[in-house]
Amino acid sequence: MFIMLPKYDILTDEQIQTIHDNTMRILQEVGVEFSYEPAIEIFRKHGQKVDGHRVYFDREFVEEMVEGAPSEFTLHARNPEHNLICGGNNTIFMPGYGAPFIHDVDGNRRNATIQDYDNFVKLAGASKNLHMTGGNVVEPQDVPDETRHMSMMYSHITNSDKCFMGSASGYEKAKDSIEITALLHGGLDVIKENPALVCLVNSVTPLKFDDRMLGGLMAYAEAGQATIIASLVMSGSTGPATIAGALSVQNAEVLAGITLGQCINPGTPVIYGSTSAITDMASGALAIGNPECALFISASAQLARFYGVPSRGGGGLTDSKIVDAQSGYESMMTLFAASATGINFVLHSAGILQYYMAMSFEKFMQDDEIAGMVSRYIKGIDMTEDKLAFDVISKVGPGGHYLTQKHTRKNFKVEFYKPSLSDRQSYDGWANNKLTANQRGNQKWQDVVENYVSPVLDPDVKQKIDEYIAKRSKELL
Amino acid sequence: MFIMLPKYDILTDEQIQTIHDNTMRILQEVGVEFSYEPAIEIFRKHGQKVDGHRVYFDREFVEEMVEGAPSEFTLHARNPEHNLICGGNNTIFMPGYGAPFIHDVDGNRRNATIQDYDNFVKLAGASKNLHMTGGNVVEPQDVPDETRHMSMMYSHITNSDKCFMGSASGYEKAKDSIEITALLHGGLDVIKENPALVCLVNSVTPLKFDDRMLGGLMAYAEAGQATIIASLVMSGSTGPATIAGALSVQNAEVLAGITLGQCINPGTPVIYGSTSAITDMASGALAIGNPECALFISASAQLARFYGVPSRGGGGLTDSKIVDAQSGYESMMTLFAASATGINFVLHSAGILQYYMAMSFEKFMQDDEIAGMVSRYIKGIDMTEDKLAFDVISKVGPGGHYLTQKHTRKNFKVEFYKPSLSDRQSYDGWANNKLTANQRGNQKWQDVVENYVSPVLDPDVKQKIDEYIAKRSKELL
Repeated sequence: MFIMLPKYDILTDEQIQTIHDNTMRILQEVGVEFSYEPAIEIFRKHGQKVDGHRVYFDREFVEEMVEGAPSEFTLHARNPEHNLICGGNNTIFMPGYGAPFIHDVDGNRRNATIQDYDNFVKLAGASKNLHMTGGNVVEPQDVPDETRHMSMMYSHITNSDKCFMGSASGYEKAKDSIEITALLHGGLDVIKENPALVCLVNSVTPLKFDDRMLGGLMAYAEAGQATIIASLVMSGSTGPATIAGALSVQNAEVLAGITLGQCINPGTPVIYGSTSAITDMASGALAIGNPECALFISASAQLARFYGVPSRGGGGLTDSKIVDAQSGYESMMTLFAASATGINFVLHSAGILQYYMAMSFEKFMQDDEIAGMVSRYIKGIDMTEDKLAFDVISKVGPGGHYLTQKHTRKNFKVEFYKPSLSDRQSYDGWANNKLTANQRGNQKWQDVVENYVSPVLDPDVKQKIDEYIAKRSKELL
Repeated sequence: MFIMLPKYDILTDEQIQTIHDNTMRILQEVGVEFSYEPAIEIFRKHGQKVDGHRVYFDREFVEEMVEGAPSEFTLHARNPEHNLICGGNNTIFMPGYGAPFIHDVDGNRRNATIQDYDNFVKLAGASKNLHMTGGNVVEPQDVPDETRHMSMMYSHITNSDKCFMGSASGYEKAKDSIEITALLHGGLDVIKENPALVCLVNSVTPLKFDDRMLGGLMAYAEAGQATIIASLVMSGSTGPATIAGALSVQNAEVLAGITLGQCINPGTPVIYGSTSAITDMASGALAIGNPECALFISASAQLARFYGVPSRGGGGLTDSKIVDAQSGYESMMTLFAASATGINFVLHSAGILQYYMAMSFEKFMQDDEIAGMVSRYIKGIDMTEDKLAFDVISKVGPGGHYLTQKHTRKNFKVEFYKPSLSDRQSYDGWANNKLTANQRGNQKWQDVVENYVSPVLDPDVKQKIDEYIAKRSKELL
């Protein structure tokens, strides 16, 4: 899906340069800590100053490495119709990531299961507004931790033919994700040429990266698969309580990660990732459904453009525990900000409640609608001659109406987004059962899952993947 | 309140010119109908071609008249601290306008009363996020239609010292609004010099203006009070089913109205108003909480800038009948679009449900929060040296935390918006009573109204207004 509007740049060129300069000073004078020895070794080889686990970066080195990263790349799906371009004017929506809990329609909480996982993948597979089925859409608590990464991936592969994400939890699990994807696409060399997998590498804010994530980064970069280098600065606790300061910490972390990726495999696809948000200073907890977070998202889209790499940020973000007005306005703010400012890769587009702690099926339906709405907005206004409509305006004249005009019948389905969850009835129509969007979402997601038909997977391919997972499970369990 | 971010221009200069050219062609070749003889007489005097009620405009004449309208003006409150600049980088929020019904927390409907009216004015008076108490905030059904315009105005004057709107329902009611405001401010000459009143003049789409509205426009223009010339094109029924076509019809109507205002009193303050939206093609009803409406809002902000006049558009717009996720995401979309694209005067910022048919106190609290959130967003990112925070970033270093830093304590209250309705608790905290935003809003608005203290009104001024209303009521009833 494309942004056809001019992208909303909230920062001036001078402000971008200010953040860049502040970031470079942090990288040079404060440095970043890497706990993973192979990473430190790489930086040492590239002539960077290393002191224990701390690396101090040369400005020119970072700028040169980041410069070498591709500005866009194609992510390949097993159904080529679902191939995606990541970067440029493209916006990719997908479900939430990593939540351990499910909140139900009444606000009750339970652990997520693999059945939930399958259902979210089916909902994303069925959605017209989501482009990928995501990754780690919930943490299914009923499958063993050791093999969970493969169970999750198997759900994506068997329930949909859209693109998906793999695990970055250490070098070994990352390798499993890559091997399985290679089986799906016809070999490691095939996906090295045509990236088919993307993973999420998070920094440990402030200014650190841990073993697990660095191992993942290394495996993906070596295999030429895409990596999101993401920083979640909690302004006020893991970063300064100012947007500009937290943004600088985030920027330093992300550039350090991108630099590492490019050192490992020059030209490997990377994505500039931000999930920075604020700390609720009363409780110390993360708060994501707020205007400060929308500012982080917007600024990050622009920083990524400045560095010439695709961006990741935003989503349908909320601190609410249930699908209500708060979940609606917070999610719209953060998804609208992401879309209008030109974020390319929008993890967490659908389903998230309570600052990433929970997924909800009703919330998924809410966000699917929001994704459709913002997609229509960023398509903008078609100003070709037929759309300017002078002839029909002249024909109808003052005081007439357009309902029966051919021009109307021809155009409204193209011009107007068709809502799936929103209610446009009269009061009396609605008052027959007085359903809220939460209640309508509850009916709707069950209908979609019930009617979903998974796309056929080549039985030979499926068998190879089954065998790989069986073999690896024996080793791991 | 200011937009400190660059304004979001969704149209290119070329697209603006295209709409302008299409509009000029409509004004010249299709024309606009005015049912009010004095208006037609004015156009005839200015050399425009008149055929019955239809006026065909010269392009140069319209361009010249619109050029003469002020780009911004100050609206005066009885408390000068609440004076407002309308135009430029300023955004003014106020309650909804004109709804006959109240929907309660459970989605039940009843007629609005003058007690409701007072309560909405008090909520707007108490709000940090709303700048005016609005006008016609509901249609109170328990006061006589003949004198309702004065009952409503009296509520604004006695319950708050912020700016408010007057009636534009015909020349006589408009005159009452102006006379009462003159009593409040010390004379007609005082408010002619320092405008203190603004009214809403709606076209009759497509391409018409009726007697009542033209009478209002004439009275306000003569008295030097501000007039919003607003068009609500229902794309698909009262206008073409294309955004570009409907926008052109809207633009023709608004420019015709602005031209008339400037003919009556050159330099009189006018506001370019858009409430254009779409038709729900299934029912034929208006639908306002949608991306097409957000595009109309955004494009209108830019058209008004092109013409050098303040803009009105947007609000917390929704088609929902209750405060739920839909009311949340639709209202955020339309208020965010209005704010980021630089709309100056945002009628309907708080309280509206069901495409202008109803007001809700819970919705008011939802929208007050949304207004606070978007206000924070458009304040942007402060990049002064202290906010860049290099020193504290250096001091805390990798792996540390910022919670106890002086820099944090000093900055978080300035940088972070403090929510009033949104819940940021943990799941367990929230699960104690599982309140939705709708339920919290219900508690909150009652607290605010209960604790509200109306600002003191000079007893002599009050007596004069009382006498005026008593005298006029005798004549009208």
